[in-house]
Amino acid sequence: MAQAQAQRRRNGNIRNGNGNGSQCKENDLLLLLRERSEGQGHHHVHRLNLTSSLNKGNNAKATIVTVLALAMAMLLLLFYSSSTSTSTSTRITSPSTTGTAYEALSVSVSPDSDAVINLDHGDPTMFEPFWKNAGDKATVVIPGWHTMSYFSDTSNLCWFLEPDFANQVHRLHRIVGNAVTHAHHIIVGVGSTQLIHALLFALSATATATHHPVSVVSAAPFYSMYPGITDFLKSRLFRWAGDATSFKVNGSSSFIEIICSPNNPDGTLRRAVLSTEAGKLVHDLAYYWPQYTPMRGPADEDIMLFTVSKATGHAGTRIGWALVRDADVARRMVKFIEMNSIGVSKDSQVRAARILQVISDGYELPDPDSTTSFFHFSRRLLADRWQRLRRAVEESGRFSLPQFSSEFCEFTKEHAETYPAFAWLRCDDESIEDCEGFFKSMKVLTRSGRHFGAGPEYIRISMLDRAHNFDLFVERIASLGLR
Amino acid sequence: MAQAQAQRRRNGNIRNGNGNGSQCKENDLLLLLRERSEGQGHHHVHRLNLTSSLNKGNNAKATIVTVLALAMAMLLLLFYSSSTSTSTSTRITSPSTTGTAYEALSVSVSPDSDAVINLDHGDPTMFEPFWKNAGDKATVVIPGWHTMSYFSDTSNLCWFLEPDFANQVHRLHRIVGNAVTHAHHIIVGVGSTQLIHALLFALSATATATHHPVSVVSAAPFYSMYPGITDFLKSRLFRWAGDATSFKVNGSSSFIEIICSPNNPDGTLRRAVLSTEAGKLVHDLAYYWPQYTPMRGPADEDIMLFTVSKATGHAGTRIGWALVRDADVARRMVKFIEMNSIGVSKDSQVRAARILQVISDGYELPDPDSTTSFFHFSRRLLADRWQRLRRAVEESGRFSLPQFSSEFCEFTKEHAETYPAFAWLRCDDESIEDCEGFFKSMKVLTRSGRHFGAGPEYIRISMLDRAHNFDLFVERIASLGLR
Repeated sequence: MAQAQAQRRRNGNIRNGNGNGSQCKENDLLLLLRERSEGQGHHHVHRLNLTSSLNKGNNAKATIVTVLALAMAMLLLLFYSSSTSTSTSTRITSPSTTGTAYEALSVSVSPDSDAVINLDHGDPTMFEPFWKNAGDKATVVIPGWHTMSYFSDTSNLCWFLEPDFANQVHRLHRIVGNAVTHAHHIIVGVGSTQLIHALLFALSATATATHHPVSVVSAAPFYSMYPGITDFLKSRLFRWAGDATSFKVNGSSSFIEIICSPNNPDGTLRRAVLSTEAGKLVHDLAYYWPQYTPMRGPADEDIMLFTVSKATGHAGTRIGWALVRDADVARRMVKFIEMNSIGVSKDSQVRAARILQVISDGYELPDPDSTTSFFHFSRRLLADRWQRLRRAVEESGRFSLPQFSSEFCEFTKEHAETYPAFAWLRCDDESIEDCEGFFKSMKVLTRSGRHFGAGPEYIRISMLDRAHNFDLFVERIASLGLR
Repeated sequence: MAQAQAQRRRNGNIRNGNGNGSQCKENDLLLLLRERSEGQGHHHVHRLNLTSSLNKGNNAKATIVTVLALAMAMLLLLFYSSSTSTSTSTRITSPSTTGTAYEALSVSVSPDSDAVINLDHGDPTMFEPFWKNAGDKATVVIPGWHTMSYFSDTSNLCWFLEPDFANQVHRLHRIVGNAVTHAHHIIVGVGSTQLIHALLFALSATATATHHPVSVVSAAPFYSMYPGITDFLKSRLFRWAGDATSFKVNGSSSFIEIICSPNNPDGTLRRAVLSTEAGKLVHDLAYYWPQYTPMRGPADEDIMLFTVSKATGHAGTRIGWALVRDADVARRMVKFIEMNSIGVSKDSQVRAARILQVISDGYELPDPDSTTSFFHFSRRLLADRWQRLRRAVEESGRFSLPQFSSEFCEFTKEHAETYPAFAWLRCDDESIEDCEGFFKSMKVLTRSGRHFGAGPEYIRISMLDRAHNFDLFVERIASLGLR
């Protein structure tokens, strides 16, 4: 959504003040005046062109006149807008200021006060600036006649796995030290979501000799998609059975426990709650990367899931991978992916291989620096965001956030904090019954704790959106403390 | 598989003659000597490098010595191999010759007589030469920071559909005239396979008020994956109910009929067998393109499925699309794809858009010719293959193939034959009980009629493999008539 909004912004729509929540409320003019260290997606080029036209002597006068005219028009529209504001918009205050010329302007005209900020999904667009900076080495070029076949490597159990992608997966895990891979099969999937489906099939297809569906559980708060993924096709093979901590194991029934670590939504490190011969464990390690959490050494579970979406920020590429020790489980996962989608896009695998390669190359250079060290770069951005969010939350006096102790990171070789991809925020203010609704009234879309097996006093907030949206969000929270 | 085999060939494996069916039986040396109009996949560059090293003066002597040594080693291995040949290999005769130096050599050493030819899948690698010839205009370049978001266009019901891909889909259908699109939603999927799953969910989720699974049917012979797609997850929403022609409609039960036209496996044009208010129709039009069948005007069904795999040959890209008239059905399909894979690779859509664009551009040039007219190029290849196959089948005296009448093609504006993507071959020789097994004994892998709701006297044979494999296959059939 953020990308589409950004496009509309740059297409020159002047806000019309009609209060339609799905429309972008920002405008080109302010974007032109604004200078931030982070870019705004792949429409950046338009912005730069406009900025450079401002700097050209022969066009400067005409451009300044245009800018002033647009500013006048905008102010008129804003005036009209404020006279027709709805009841929800009255709850929103202007963003706080820190004294720059732009931000002084932003207060006087409230350019973003109506903008809906969608932090419901974990859309990892925060990482775009690193990849812009990486330049040509992160670019893939795919001629028309490449990778046309269904098949990548028929000598591999996973016949649709591109060998180069597999090599880069092995290599990155070795460099980061977050998972052992030498005794595991790599199964590539359309994101780790397809791989969870594949695992439910693979682990239940043999377990259902008793004709009872296998119970699928995860300790609350659990990733909000696990219940839906399990139940939406009403399979007789498996069924969602809720919170693992309240699940009763009995001898005849089998179960699958999904352990998400670090956990989505709350960032905690997790171990299996249930441990018995009757069960199978799936370790969803999507967030076990150095930007989010200190590395405690390589995971060595029977089944581990990763995804480029959270590792590198390439959610649109839809590539995940499973590391699976047992060949029969791996084969049944491959069977699932054959039946579900006849394999996984080769183009996406080629691209993911290049992306992983750039990260690994960056750490194998003689002198890695901030422009080549992806995890260090990303970690710094997240550290800054978490510090600002914690300060704003504290100032508001109404909310609380999880606390994490500093740990030694085997990757960076220093003590490090935990900076989860999501903020699992609790409304401590008892006058707020529904935390998601409260944030929605501030035009911040989040996901209610109810979807995670927790209460409505919790919300999950993405920490991975573009800088502009995150800045607005923090400003809105901070402003609550000023009222 | 052909691609992996080609790689092994070029990696310099000398055939070891141990009769392992999955191993490639060809070798580098012969490939170096061989000149064919069609390339051999994206490992072509290695071959050229080897050839050019032969031409370098300073290395020429050493290289010639190496080549001669390899040739000697190969002949020794072949001699050993022929003295240990198995009973199945004795059924295989040498390929026929047409008099070139290479082919004379190929007869004397039988380079391909042991090669397993996999025509089980419809892997559309036949189209590679067109795309090689298309050059840079078919190449996509994707910078590292592009298409990172989950979202393509949040103003679209199908929020993960890349607008440029949608535009090219509309454009190509308009140029070819095979489907109306203006009143339909486009839903992109991971191949049309994921879209069939999405449709079963979308069409049964509302129909199951009665709590009976919806029956899914298709007239035999039907595409062999329909039963598995429907039943492998044991959903309570739908179940496979077999051949549509023997399905009894009753008032209270609902059904989904899948109509594949032209039909996989037999190439016939199809209409719905069942037509009642209780049922929903899904038109799988994967093969309704001018290379396979004359265009009879635009299809205008409620639900139509297409895939780049069969339209352009890009099976590895895993992109299909559905044209869906009803917004509620389209929304439920989107819901399925969210739950199944959180959208569809943007990289693949970007590439598919470019591929469709090249085809459309080729027909909108002032003077399209054989190098720019994809459907004309492909049609000529298929026409040649079908003529050669029909001749070989006739000579063998043991088999028969479907016959099609010539029809007027609205696209080419001339009378045209039908050249299906698969040969639906019948063993007329009553001494052959299992046609698939008979071809397997010739080291030709095909798919038995049993998988299509037909008898073991039928097999489905892909007509879309690389030229080299198809040539060998036809030679083997022709050789049956000589014995």
